[in-house]
Amino acid sequence: MRWSETGAAPCSIARSLSVVGDCWTLLLLREAFRGTSRFEEFRERLGVARNVLAARLRRLAEHGVLERVAETGGPGRRGHYRLTAKGRDLYPVLLALLRWGDRWLADERGAPMALVHQACRHQTTPTVTCSHCGKPLEPGQLRARLSAAALSGTTQR
Amino acid sequence: MRWSETGAAPCSIARSLSVVGDCWTLLLLREAFRGTSRFEEFRERLGVARNVLAARLRRLAEHGVLERVAETGGPGRRGHYRLTAKGRDLYPVLLALLRWGDRWLADERGAPMALVHQACRHQTTPTVTCSHCGKPLEPGQLRARLSAAALSGTTQR
Repeated sequence: MRWSETGAAPCSIARSLSVVGDCWTLLLLREAFRGTSRFEEFRERLGVARNVLAARLRRLAEHGVLERVAETGGPGRRGHYRLTAKGRDLYPVLLALLRWGDRWLADERGAPMALVHQACRHQTTPTVTCSHCGKPLEPGQLRARLSAAALSGTTQR
Repeated sequence: MRWSETGAAPCSIARSLSVVGDCWTLLLLREAFRGTSRFEEFRERLGVARNVLAARLRRLAEHGVLERVAETGGPGRRGHYRLTAKGRDLYPVLLALLRWGDRWLADERGAPMALVHQACRHQTTPTVTCSHCGKPLEPGQLRARLSAAALSGTTQR
């Protein structure tokens, strides 16, 4: 079985990885969140081969994570890409990766960047918390059960 | 440039991806959080080729994400693996992927599983929030700056 086929399994982690599990894809999304939109900008900033980049952009557009925006300037110009709502909603995935790297992969000088939350103007550490009680979610504290929708077979999104 | 070389760039997202960006790796970690520890269990549950699985387990052990635990039973038995503190700290990454898949890749019956937070006994949606004010972190609300450690060149972890 290839990993991409795990997208059919009833698990949202596997499904998500079938869209964004690729390493270039996640770095490309990082650039998109930094404001990069043009093909050549992505290529220069990531140092990625053109064919790889074109394939990843196309795939993300097919999945509705990026949308291609036509560019004025005539034929031969490549369009640019922007994040859709579905794409912007991947921000927490990147923040979770960032926090882990800051904590466990920093060099002797510490984390490369400090993050300031503009809303409260304080330095922040992105933290995954419970939507109900607000406390951080730790391994072993979550129990998964088949959702009501899955059990009833009713249509619900 | 290969994606694995982006680990040298001063970005914690790239560094994290250089360790766990692989798709099989993240699914393997999902299984580890579900309690899977033995080579054969990983293989059966993921349907992954033995050589691929062995390479991924070895890599995660080298990076200190899993530790190999010797098994009694004599030669020829493969050991089993358990998450280290560094590995358990990847839980938020998986939760962020889970939440995105639940929201955007659910089928017509809705998300496959519902999560209950044992500490507060309520159904929960993992949410990435600010460690200072507790509000969800949205794109555009964070400003990154070179950390004090990076600027001063002092040793700090």
